[in-house]
Amino acid sequence: MKHQLSQKTRSKLEKVSTATIATALFKAGFKNQFIQDVHPLKIKEKTMVGQAFTLRYIPAREDRNGIEVFRNPDHPQRIAVETCPKDYVMVIDSRKNARAASAGSILVTRLMKRGVAGIVTDGGFRDSSEIAELPFSSFQNRASAPTNLTLHEALDIDVPIACGDVAVFPGDVVVGDADGVIVIPIEIAEELAEQCINMTLYEDFVLQRVQEGSAVIGLYPLTDPKIQKEFDLWKSKKHTK
Amino acid sequence: MKHQLSQKTRSKLEKVSTATIATALFKAGFKNQFIQDVHPLKIKEKTMVGQAFTLRYIPAREDRNGIEVFRNPDHPQRIAVETCPKDYVMVIDSRKNARAASAGSILVTRLMKRGVAGIVTDGGFRDSSEIAELPFSSFQNRASAPTNLTLHEALDIDVPIACGDVAVFPGDVVVGDADGVIVIPIEIAEELAEQCINMTLYEDFVLQRVQEGSAVIGLYPLTDPKIQKEFDLWKSKKHTK
Amino acid sequence: MKHQLSQKTRSKLEKVSTATIATALFKAGFKNQFIQDVHPLKIKEKTMVGQAFTLRYIPAREDRNGIEVFRNPDHPQRIAVETCPKDYVMVIDSRKNARAASAGSILVTRLMKRGVAGIVTDGGFRDSSEIAELPFSSFQNRASAPTNLTLHEALDIDVPIACGDVAVFPGDVVVGDADGVIVIPIEIAEELAEQCINMTLYEDFVLQRVQEGSAVIGLYPLTDPKIQKEFDLWKSKKHTK
Amino acid sequence: MKHQLSQKTRSKLEKVSTATIATALFKAGFKNQFIQDVHPLKIKEKTMVGQAFTLRYIPAREDRNGIEVFRNPDHPQRIAVETCPKDYVMVIDSRKNARAASAGSILVTRLMKRGVAGIVTDGGFRDSSEIAELPFSSFQNRASAPTNLTLHEALDIDVPIACGDVAVFPGDVVVGDADGVIVIPIEIAEELAEQCINMTLYEDFVLQRVQEGSAVIGLYPLTDPKIQKEFDLWKSKKHTK
Amino acid sequence: MKHQLSQKTRSKLEKVSTATIATALFKAGFKNQFIQDVHPLKIKEKTMVGQAFTLRYIPAREDRNGIEVFRNPDHPQRIAVETCPKDYVMVIDSRKNARAASAGSILVTRLMKRGVAGIVTDGGFRDSSEIAELPFSSFQNRASAPTNLTLHEALDIDVPIACGDVAVFPGDVVVGDADGVIVIPIEIAEELAEQCINMTLYEDFVLQRVQEGSAVIGLYPLTDPKIQKEFDLWKSKKHTK
Amino acid sequence: MKHQLSQKTRSKLEKVSTATIATALFKAGFKNQFIQDVHPLKIKEKTMVGQAFTLRYIPAREDRNGIEVFRNPDHPQRIAVETCPKDYVMVIDSRKNARAASAGSILVTRLMKRGVAGIVTDGGFRDSSEIAELPFSSFQNRASAPTNLTLHEALDIDVPIACGDVAVFPGDVVVGDADGVIVIPIEIAEELAEQCINMTLYEDFVLQRVQEGSAVIGLYPLTDPKIQKEFDLWKSKKHTK
Repeated sequence: MKHQLSQKTRSKLEKVSTATIATALFKAGFKNQFIQDVHPLKIKEKTMVGQAFTLRYIPAREDRNGIEVFRNPDHPQRIAVETCPKDYVMVIDSRKNARAASAGSILVTRLMKRGVAGIVTDGGFRDSSEIAELPFSSFQNRASAPTNLTLHEALDIDVPIACGDVAVFPGDVVVGDADGVIVIPIEIAEELAEQCINMTLYEDFVLQRVQEGSAVIGLYPLTDPKIQKEFDLWKSKKHTK
Repeated sequence: MKHQLSQKTRSKLEKVSTATIATALFKAGFKNQFIQDVHPLKIKEKTMVGQAFTLRYIPAREDRNGIEVFRNPDHPQRIAVETCPKDYVMVIDSRKNARAASAGSILVTRLMKRGVAGIVTDGGFRDSSEIAELPFSSFQNRASAPTNLTLHEALDIDVPIACGDVAVFPGDVVVGDADGVIVIPIEIAEELAEQCINMTLYEDFVLQRVQEGSAVIGLYPLTDPKIQKEFDLWKSKKHTK
Repeated sequence: MKHQLSQKTRSKLEKVSTATIATALFKAGFKNQFIQDVHPLKIKEKTMVGQAFTLRYIPAREDRNGIEVFRNPDHPQRIAVETCPKDYVMVIDSRKNARAASAGSILVTRLMKRGVAGIVTDGGFRDSSEIAELPFSSFQNRASAPTNLTLHEALDIDVPIACGDVAVFPGDVVVGDADGVIVIPIEIAEELAEQCINMTLYEDFVLQRVQEGSAVIGLYPLTDPKIQKEFDLWKSKKHTK
Repeated sequence: MKHQLSQKTRSKLEKVSTATIATALFKAGFKNQFIQDVHPLKIKEKTMVGQAFTLRYIPAREDRNGIEVFRNPDHPQRIAVETCPKDYVMVIDSRKNARAASAGSILVTRLMKRGVAGIVTDGGFRDSSEIAELPFSSFQNRASAPTNLTLHEALDIDVPIACGDVAVFPGDVVVGDADGVIVIPIEIAEELAEQCINMTLYEDFVLQRVQEGSAVIGLYPLTDPKIQKEFDLWKSKKHTK
Repeated sequence: MKHQLSQKTRSKLEKVSTATIATALFKAGFKNQFIQDVHPLKIKEKTMVGQAFTLRYIPAREDRNGIEVFRNPDHPQRIAVETCPKDYVMVIDSRKNARAASAGSILVTRLMKRGVAGIVTDGGFRDSSEIAELPFSSFQNRASAPTNLTLHEALDIDVPIACGDVAVFPGDVVVGDADGVIVIPIEIAEELAEQCINMTLYEDFVLQRVQEGSAVIGLYPLTDPKIQKEFDLWKSKKHTK
Repeated sequence: MKHQLSQKTRSKLEKVSTATIATALFKAGFKNQFIQDVHPLKIKEKTMVGQAFTLRYIPAREDRNGIEVFRNPDHPQRIAVETCPKDYVMVIDSRKNARAASAGSILVTRLMKRGVAGIVTDGGFRDSSEIAELPFSSFQNRASAPTNLTLHEALDIDVPIACGDVAVFPGDVVVGDADGVIVIPIEIAEELAEQCINMTLYEDFVLQRVQEGSAVIGLYPLTDPKIQKEFDLWKSKKHTK
């Protein structure tokens, strides 16, 4: 049975950063879960969180990728757009090739309307300024106007893929913020989310202290027992508010 | 005789996106007209449209590129800036090398004052924040402070060049928006502009429908005769407004 | 004895651009002082100026870079953050590798609180949106969430380094604006700053003239004696204001 | 039903070069069938020809790629090696990543013993000098000692893949010589092979003429009717030998 | 006290391949010890083995790197050549920049005469064909004629460096063969060498079996108890020879 | 009037290496004359020397580069092959793009038969093994089978070009050996050749000494007056032989 991301875990992950998640993954032995060189089209208030629904592109061969292929109602790219589950993130393996678009504003708008949580490609989007302005999370390498048929053939839906040098398995948890996108194996998402909440709490304390003038040694990471006590106090006050 | 871009075609192209143009070019058999990895310094309301006036750089050789060369009133870069026709776009072949500047704010301001439509380099500009704030379209790979003499020698004016892996012939129509810059062979610009206007009209209809909740299959591309009728109605209403 | 950047020279450099400095360095025989492909996280009003305090990273080896290393109060990265002198710029040699972070918001905030003038890496920062919003100058290649332990081991403090293909010696003057970051050998900083002030004055005059409609030939560079007189007049008026 | 490469077509393709095939494919509308930046480990007398049997790698995730995975008799890489059909070419999608090996000499030797026609990766092989010396065709980007578990997880067997920016479908005809590797869609292989035989015959005639001192204009391509006659004569003599 | 490579360990390492060492390092938790994209100038019979003596280059600054600097008897590059211990391998951090030479045939010949075991750069050598023909191990990215002063300043001797994305600590054991160069932390060299000897013995058995027609499953890795017995027998026979 | 390379200067340059020329150019203020990442198809006994005859390619546009264009007797590539002067080197600006061929064996053979001295591209050749075996100097980045029409349009003959990041002016002297290709401005070729002969003489002396066991300090460069005397003696003996 496939793992599901619980609402509780999702809520936790929405409150933590990809940087904190990266550290938690590092501690758990995962050093290569950050999708490389992929950025938000526009930085959004809300962190993107959702399970991965994947789309695999291979290089386009001319005889298979004329403009007419989209007339086929079973074209994998269109099927993907209409079947990606609500609250999932569509992740596209564009082989790090942004010389043609992975998708454009119409398909991305459709995903948004269908309740999808976001879209990620290690290539690029066309109509990038329209996509950037949607109330929807989108991540790419760089904008690219050419139709995806120019270089990409959508081949597979919901298979394990590579995206920005990261293995993405369908159902993995995908989190995106200003730094970029990170992938959490679904099996450890619940435990890792809880750990990240605790790490974030301490980082908030640290940042407040540093803003007040504290040095980082002893404080970050916590090695000074005195600071441990101060943190415990700070935490209890915070909770009683 | 050289082709001229008519005001009518220019107006049409100002109303369509580089993405739509890329699709129309793809249909016409042109798959490599989008200048790769070149971006607006700042996204402007108005789409840049103009015929190409080109400038070719080769690598700078030390004995030919001392700081004194700009004292020569016949230096090709300066001649280019003073002779680029009004409403044209200056396109610079910087060999995709942004390690030194292709131009700076003084020259770009001069182009603007002379009525030029925009400037494109597959290298970079210095004084990039000043250029970005001008009411003028400018596209580059990335900002670069070093004087162009460091790495570039301006050699030829208005010859066919490469820019971002695209062939640019003098007089070709250059269109730029948030996605980047695309080059339309002048011979097909008129017909292609008309086609893009029609495609854009349909895309507007599609986007409205998708925003209202329609699925894309049957709608985009149009394969459902019922939607054809709805589109015809929508179009007639739109025109009677 | 080590050279010190005087307040007077610092003030001058705050009034000139990296582009002008690059030209002055070119005239002085320095063609490779611009840190390549490094950009401000956010463009700031104030130009960053400070002497270089360097940090050298080498690739992380797994047995030397477990998460526990930061518990060591003598870890070079933490020592660097607590010892970088006030008004200096921390410059990190990340070997142009942005696949893991060079630092995050806590350390950068600490540097800011300690009065450091800015931070530069040829890799990337995590927590990039928080760092961008600080009233502090920061420059990177691109954002990167993974902890620096993933790929970087902080090894040396205040030794000559490479950053973005530029040699950076401790004490060199580092200047950063929207175009990026340039490095001035400390030995020539005073003289070069004065020269840049004069160049900037003339460039301001040129830009005003170009905005008023002047052509660039004869004006930029100045070869027309008539314009020399006009500039002298303009300068004297400016000074009497 | 899947197409099969006939012995006749195979024999023809063994007599022509990848360059000639590339031209024939260009004429047929295929411009992107040459696997980029992949080279023979050692140039062999015999041209490699075989249908593609594919293996898809994705990035290795640490928890799924410990050294023990190869103990699993169903590991896809080992299954691939034991099931790749005789006379086929194993083509590996290594995502153009040669930082870890795609395979080593033991597996390649096993493929050779099983009668496989060759192996191609857009990554690299370990034990490269042993593989080079085998009487077996092998193509890679560059040698690479790390075990493939370091960066690659073998995931799929005999699905369409990307290799060196080319779409490779199982059953396509893969031809390799000193220039590299080209992929012929199986549907057109027979016709294209015949065409290549004819082109090669004419190229042999041209090369002989050029060696004897002829100019290329009129001769290559053939536009001079006189040369047509000479070629017809040459051809008939050749056949009567 | 610094670790020394014993003659016994050296002898073992001379009998194993970088591929086998890479696997042993992988098992020990080291995944990034293979110097990337560095190749032998000529494949030699004998495997290069020696402890690392390092040389660190930074980018050349024009005022510090005139042709006269080599007249200084204390120039670090020349000192390095005259002080690199016998049987060590000189490893140069050229920042993966082969656009100018790391060294030429005179210096490499001098190293050879001094009894050094080999030289490695992640840049390139000039006089590459002379160096290739020496009875001496040399590894580079690609040949490069320009004098190293053009882009490199030799700065430090025998400090930890990066070479081809690998951390190299003075005294680490450097092994090079046809696949390239791998770095073994000196602390584990002895144990790892012994392990590699055993692995190599088994690989020799496997390769013999595969050449004789065996399948790899059960054999490589060894999971079939029957094969274990056969191997034990083979081993005992081999030893009694 | 255009400079001509004298037979005397040519003979001198045939006796020196590109490495020695690079050093002499460095002394003369030229730091960027070595064509980057271009290598001999096969290392030849004889050094290639000849003046540059250039060919400029731009990206191919589909409507201008059908297979039929070669039927045009005025196609620039074919004209170039038939007009490149005897003893010149054809240098092709392929924009560092080896994804399609710059030329193939027929054209290269024709150049050889016409007495041309060699061919250089910063792209690649098809039929590379045939070209490698010709008694003719050829240099490329890497082999590439696709016809040049796929990506390149030959546009200009004998104009200044970029090749491998170097400015090449028609008539410049192009020298190629195992390290690669270097470009000498024709104006300084005579003087530089003489200087290189002297440098080579001293380097031969140095290499002999180093082979005999001398240290390099004092010897290379020559700073020890005693060695000057020994060299003078060695030189006089050599000349009297």
